[in-house]
Amino acid sequence: MAMAIQMAKETIGQTNPNPSVAAVVVKDNQVVGVGVHVKAGEPHAEVHALKMAGEKARDSEIYVTLEPCSHFGQTPPCAQAIIDAGIKRVIIASHDPNPKVSGRGIQMMEQAGVEVKSGILKREADQMNRAFFHFIKTKQPYVRLKSAMSLDGKIATSTGESQWITGEAARLDGHAYRHCSAAILVGINTVLVDNPKLTTRIEGEGRNPIRIVLDTELRIPTSSQLIQNDEAPTWIFTGNGVQDEEIEAFLRIPHVEIIRLESERVEVEAVLNFLGERKLTSLLIEGGGTIADAFVRAGKVNETITYIAPKLIGGKQALTPVAGKGISSLREVDAFQFLSTEQLGEDIKIVSVKKEE
Amino acid sequence: MAMAIQMAKETIGQTNPNPSVAAVVVKDNQVVGVGVHVKAGEPHAEVHALKMAGEKARDSEIYVTLEPCSHFGQTPPCAQAIIDAGIKRVIIASHDPNPKVSGRGIQMMEQAGVEVKSGILKREADQMNRAFFHFIKTKQPYVRLKSAMSLDGKIATSTGESQWITGEAARLDGHAYRHCSAAILVGINTVLVDNPKLTTRIEGEGRNPIRIVLDTELRIPTSSQLIQNDEAPTWIFTGNGVQDEEIEAFLRIPHVEIIRLESERVEVEAVLNFLGERKLTSLLIEGGGTIADAFVRAGKVNETITYIAPKLIGGKQALTPVAGKGISSLREVDAFQFLSTEQLGEDIKIVSVKKEE
Repeated sequence: MAMAIQMAKETIGQTNPNPSVAAVVVKDNQVVGVGVHVKAGEPHAEVHALKMAGEKARDSEIYVTLEPCSHFGQTPPCAQAIIDAGIKRVIIASHDPNPKVSGRGIQMMEQAGVEVKSGILKREADQMNRAFFHFIKTKQPYVRLKSAMSLDGKIATSTGESQWITGEAARLDGHAYRHCSAAILVGINTVLVDNPKLTTRIEGEGRNPIRIVLDTELRIPTSSQLIQNDEAPTWIFTGNGVQDEEIEAFLRIPHVEIIRLESERVEVEAVLNFLGERKLTSLLIEGGGTIADAFVRAGKVNETITYIAPKLIGGKQALTPVAGKGISSLREVDAFQFLSTEQLGEDIKIVSVKKEE
Repeated sequence: MAMAIQMAKETIGQTNPNPSVAAVVVKDNQVVGVGVHVKAGEPHAEVHALKMAGEKARDSEIYVTLEPCSHFGQTPPCAQAIIDAGIKRVIIASHDPNPKVSGRGIQMMEQAGVEVKSGILKREADQMNRAFFHFIKTKQPYVRLKSAMSLDGKIATSTGESQWITGEAARLDGHAYRHCSAAILVGINTVLVDNPKLTTRIEGEGRNPIRIVLDTELRIPTSSQLIQNDEAPTWIFTGNGVQDEEIEAFLRIPHVEIIRLESERVEVEAVLNFLGERKLTSLLIEGGGTIADAFVRAGKVNETITYIAPKLIGGKQALTPVAGKGISSLREVDAFQFLSTEQLGEDIKIVSVKKEE
């Protein structure tokens, strides 16, 4: 199962809106088939693994990181494929998060006489698919807030110098989160100040997330990298005060989409609903203390990734990762819990997740 | 040696201005004598251990966390005591940090025919006595900056609520630093806003550090806890603008001392020199972003102890651990290195030390 989870992890980010799943077929203590789910619309992990095992699948065991599906979606149900292949025993890590179908795949297989064991390495598998589970439950993307700061909580000096507080290893690690996120979001101020490209720079083939800008008054210059560079789609959310004529300049650019919301301001809830409808399961927030604050106050941050450099910068005016109005009462602050800390070069990386209510 | 270092650690804070030292005498693989240095002016660790071993010290081995002294101070030289006891072999962790005497104790013993091995668990022992070594080299106390903040670097909400961001375990751990510091320092604003007592609240007998307030204009109210409570001395540093009449009110209070500096403002350098002259080897900075900033900008922070709570508070106006003017250029920021991270209850504690130049 550990092998299956490891395999599935490698595909995080490429299966949107589906979860990352891997399967391993074992017969007489030998691996005879492996499979991962590569991309939405393509065969599920179990199907690949069973196909590879071929005749050897009969009377073998299959390890799957997620309960096999019981319904016809874009592909036929895997539970049936497992039954048809003559599998003797199925070992499952996570249950299907969808309350309507959870347990049905298991039931189907048990009724066909297949032995089913579940919950093996469940925690690891659940953690891996945390974003997908959140999406299934809420129909909104799982939100990660990424920050890089000094030991005293500064993301820039008082004069605005911010390149670079953290080191190479931390910055590279940050790019891996772009690769495995369906979308990346910044505020218009970040675009105006930094003019970022927001593409993924990692070794090997980096996948670019959809680039999202919250820009109430549509102030983004057509000369900015997000408009000029077409390596990934750019979606711009505006308030209802923006006129048709203003939008027109962007209509001819294929990779750019302007989404004018019905409210005067760009509300976090409306943005997340829209992204959920577009089946984006995960969102990475990368820029702007005011934007971060809007998501924090809306209670919509699910996970934090914080890189801390061993430096003290100081400065009452120096920027911090979450600015804006902030939350005034400690009682109203969402509780998170730390998942991990690790040293990356000279820096420390801390990951925390919101506590389940 | 690990046992000796463990023993010595228990005495950190009580031996000021001396280092924490422990010694273990071993004969035929059995511990026959142990000793620690309890307090300045009292016998050194080696003397206690040799006394306990008595006749068994002959032809035995002694493990010492610090090179035995070779000179007459308040007590006779330990190197001589080791020779006289007929010790066969001496195992030393750290060398004496004082360049004038470093190696002399070893030399003295070797010339007398005692076998000497040094550098065993040197790193652990050096780390334990980091404060003492710094004091010997610079004649100023070793400065620790303690902060408790949220994951986004806030020490209070935008409305000033700060009790409590971190949990019980972190706060208790913080009190242990008071116990092992010679002095604790806050700014006058912390006194006016929080009116703290700055005594040590830990299980067992907590030692109270000397309480220091930087108070340029001598604004501290005589009704404040630091003046009313006499559990520990309170030293108040002022600028040269304070008049004799203002000081008079404090003269009758035995535990309070007013130190009027020669400069208009209270300079970090002058304060540290004064504390060094008074043989205070370590200083804990606990309060006020402006005070922290003054020490950071002066390059005088040697170690940081940072408790981070798994919370996002936000707020451009919310206070951060190091405020003031700050350092404007990243090139001028002192480099630290992380020593350790650990989970304390729900929080994380991160310790870093300034990199040696």
